[in-house]
Amino acid sequence: MSVKGVLLDLEGVLYQEGTAIAGATEALAELQRRDLGIRFLTNTTTRPRSHILARLTSYGIEARAEQLFTPAIAARGLLERQGCHRIHLAAPPELAEDFDGIEIVTHDPQAVVLGDLHPGFTWERLNELFTMVLNGARLIALHRNRYCTRDGCIALDLGPFVAALEYACGTEASVVGKPDRDFFRLAVEDLGLPAEAVVMVGDDLEADIGGAQRAGLRAIQVETGKFRPSDRDQSTIHPDGQIASIADLPGMLARWDAAGP
Amino acid sequence: MSVKGVLLDLEGVLYQEGTAIAGATEALAELQRRDLGIRFLTNTTTRPRSHILARLTSYGIEARAEQLFTPAIAARGLLERQGCHRIHLAAPPELAEDFDGIEIVTHDPQAVVLGDLHPGFTWERLNELFTMVLNGARLIALHRNRYCTRDGCIALDLGPFVAALEYACGTEASVVGKPDRDFFRLAVEDLGLPAEAVVMVGDDLEADIGGAQRAGLRAIQVETGKFRPSDRDQSTIHPDGQIASIADLPGMLARWDAAGP
Repeated sequence: MSVKGVLLDLEGVLYQEGTAIAGATEALAELQRRDLGIRFLTNTTTRPRSHILARLTSYGIEARAEQLFTPAIAARGLLERQGCHRIHLAAPPELAEDFDGIEIVTHDPQAVVLGDLHPGFTWERLNELFTMVLNGARLIALHRNRYCTRDGCIALDLGPFVAALEYACGTEASVVGKPDRDFFRLAVEDLGLPAEAVVMVGDDLEADIGGAQRAGLRAIQVETGKFRPSDRDQSTIHPDGQIASIADLPGMLARWDAAGP
Repeated sequence: MSVKGVLLDLEGVLYQEGTAIAGATEALAELQRRDLGIRFLTNTTTRPRSHILARLTSYGIEARAEQLFTPAIAARGLLERQGCHRIHLAAPPELAEDFDGIEIVTHDPQAVVLGDLHPGFTWERLNELFTMVLNGARLIALHRNRYCTRDGCIALDLGPFVAALEYACGTEASVVGKPDRDFFRLAVEDLGLPAEAVVMVGDDLEADIGGAQRAGLRAIQVETGKFRPSDRDQSTIHPDGQIASIADLPGMLARWDAAGP
């Protein structure tokens, strides 16, 4: 099936080290000229969509709000589909603007949306969330990364606290961030396209390429950002296409189309 | 194989509601007269062995220190077998006396022994333990219960924090409490007997009976303590024997012996 929609990772694909990657804006303009559906996919969970849009604009990258797909936006879509109108937001308070129209409560929520609380993860706070889930709230996690770098040291990320609540409640969280399948599926649904018509473009072999392929999408790896030539030898994940940078994306998609089904 | 050793749960088997169960002391005397190896097994992880011994004495139950097998004592045995001499004790400080002869440190331990820190489980504390395990320390958990009752409410127990560290570190903790198999195996080794020669006696179908059977022991359920007649219908676990109380244990073991292999 020919490509009708494109999911684009941001950092390392469209920009890196504070500037747009050469040819990125022209490539984006070409995709839009061809009337392809576009979603920008990022795992950023500490800032609302408006903040990320402002950063893209500062790099000269044009994006409309509805094209930007973050874990918070994915969570909101999932909540609407599940008919949840009252949530508890266990995440940085700035994220509240991404849940516009949904009531944010501290008691008896229909769902708990779990994000990066970092030192806010105390026994008392976790116990509060545990009680909410035990009382019937769904558990939605913005991602489940094991660890990250803080102040130059490897430190606990959100994932361990997702695991703690899952274990305590005997339940499984819906995870709406890369590399989880649900995140890609929600983005594809947001485009209104079948997975076979959508291609993911990313620099991270595991989070972008592997995650997209597990969700039934094709995936193209760029050789910018965190790409390393050794990725290929050390992984069982094989991208459907490989390009030097985003600048080569319109050309590759045109060749795919020309080759036919 | 005839029974040569007995593992006895404490609360609900030997005593309940602050007094010894009728016939318990006589049954114990008879087991000792027959020269059976005895270990008292309890999941108590908030008090050292000396405290539990004093409680048994106050109920008129005679036990020697080396017969009392707690998760801390099991952990200590495991550490010795693994050649770990420097540990970090993330547990109530009173437990330190059960690790006599092992150095308790705050940096670069060979193992982290994880117990009930309750509100002491902060992000910072968990991150500290995460770093120790990432730097090579083994992870030993005194139990992994999901939740417990605190101040009349269901609240997080130790298990979720074990799960969090396991997920963060990509490792599996050794769990040295009921119903985990390792705990029973360590008790059996402490008796110096093969599992087939040892029987567990308990009131809890899951923690005592199921745990012991998974470790290859036979198990007898008493109808005291937390026993409920409905246990039998609601569980896939079937005890090898059932007695009204510990008072009937010597008689049942004698009948088993008479029946032969």
